[in-house]
Amino acid sequence: MITREELIGQLNWRYATKQFDPVRKISDADWAALEQALILSPSSYGLQPWQFVVVTDPAIREKLVPVSWNQRQPADCSHFVVFAIKKNFGVAEINALLDRTAEVRGGDRAKLDAYGSMMIGDLINGPRSKWIQEWMARQVYIALGNFMTCAALLNIDTCPMEGFDPAQYDEILGFPERGLAAVVACPAGYRAASDKYAGLAKVRFPADEVFLRI
Amino acid sequence: MITREELIGQLNWRYATKQFDPVRKISDADWAALEQALILSPSSYGLQPWQFVVVTDPAIREKLVPVSWNQRQPADCSHFVVFAIKKNFGVAEINALLDRTAEVRGGDRAKLDAYGSMMIGDLINGPRSKWIQEWMARQVYIALGNFMTCAALLNIDTCPMEGFDPAQYDEILGFPERGLAAVVACPAGYRAASDKYAGLAKVRFPADEVFLRI
Repeated sequence: MITREELIGQLNWRYATKQFDPVRKISDADWAALEQALILSPSSYGLQPWQFVVVTDPAIREKLVPVSWNQRQPADCSHFVVFAIKKNFGVAEINALLDRTAEVRGGDRAKLDAYGSMMIGDLINGPRSKWIQEWMARQVYIALGNFMTCAALLNIDTCPMEGFDPAQYDEILGFPERGLAAVVACPAGYRAASDKYAGLAKVRFPADEVFLRI
Repeated sequence: MITREELIGQLNWRYATKQFDPVRKISDADWAALEQALILSPSSYGLQPWQFVVVTDPAIREKLVPVSWNQRQPADCSHFVVFAIKKNFGVAEINALLDRTAEVRGGDRAKLDAYGSMMIGDLINGPRSKWIQEWMARQVYIALGNFMTCAALLNIDTCPMEGFDPAQYDEILGFPERGLAAVVACPAGYRAASDKYAGLAKVRFPADEVFLRI
């Protein structure tokens, strides 16, 4: 198992990779582990209100560059993931989780109805319904945080990317007809030897500014 | 270093812990590592628009229980973290990052002005200014995702908590006078032997539902 020092070492090793090696690819075994890590991401109620879109088509990835503030990571990285939310999240998605729960754990599906009503009361009919899209976006960022940390533990570089035009991403990726909306993206792969950002010291505020103890 | 199998094993080991052992505490060395992990969380532009509030006062932690849907994790866990945003995030916070960057990396502070103007144009005067609080909340969720994964790697249990009254948290924790607002919380510690949720199979949608390949 990993030690504290190794864990912190990997978090210090990672950085927002600006230039990826366009040749070196993540191995199938490592990528399978990262997909599993994404699947295992925690989410509110366990609802997993996300779709992880892995863009492999080189022509499409090249099209994403000009709508990503001309950053080359979408085209040059090994695996490019767009984190999307389900625009029409509703009762059906909540029921899908309950169905899946009964399938995985066995037991009486009807016994989960109370839990379903609680979630519907909170998310569909309650206060959170007013900002359900944003609630989904927040869950997606849990997955993003988990993904970047797991990648770093496998010596794989990433770069969280908000710097793109979501409407253009949606159009290029055919999201509207799939009921999806792009929220954030994350290229993964290996840093290019020429990426000057790799050598820069990490900038973090001191602990006494970041932490408050009550 | 950790293997793929160990990494996925730890992600499968973690679950949203409902009952914490109220006696067993995280060691100082482990907690120091988790604080370091929080500090090292990635964020948009590296702006770290967050405050990690570690609530240690038992009386205050007990007060949080009734405004946490009567869940006992805030009182029973070893370390309780409230993830807050800075309500008045603005140009001063952006300049603070540039100052810190010059301090950590050396070099001419004035050379960072163009980067500062770009961030101000995007976040303070640009389209993102309309939802800057939400943008901060999303960054906080990256830190939350990173925190839960790092904790699991150290065999420490967590539970992401949205189920509380943010206004009550703010009042109890004195956030308004500090310019903070509670976004999400995360107890950390060790699962109680009596937590029946620990033994349940993890429920995740199948890979072919969660992933889309384009």
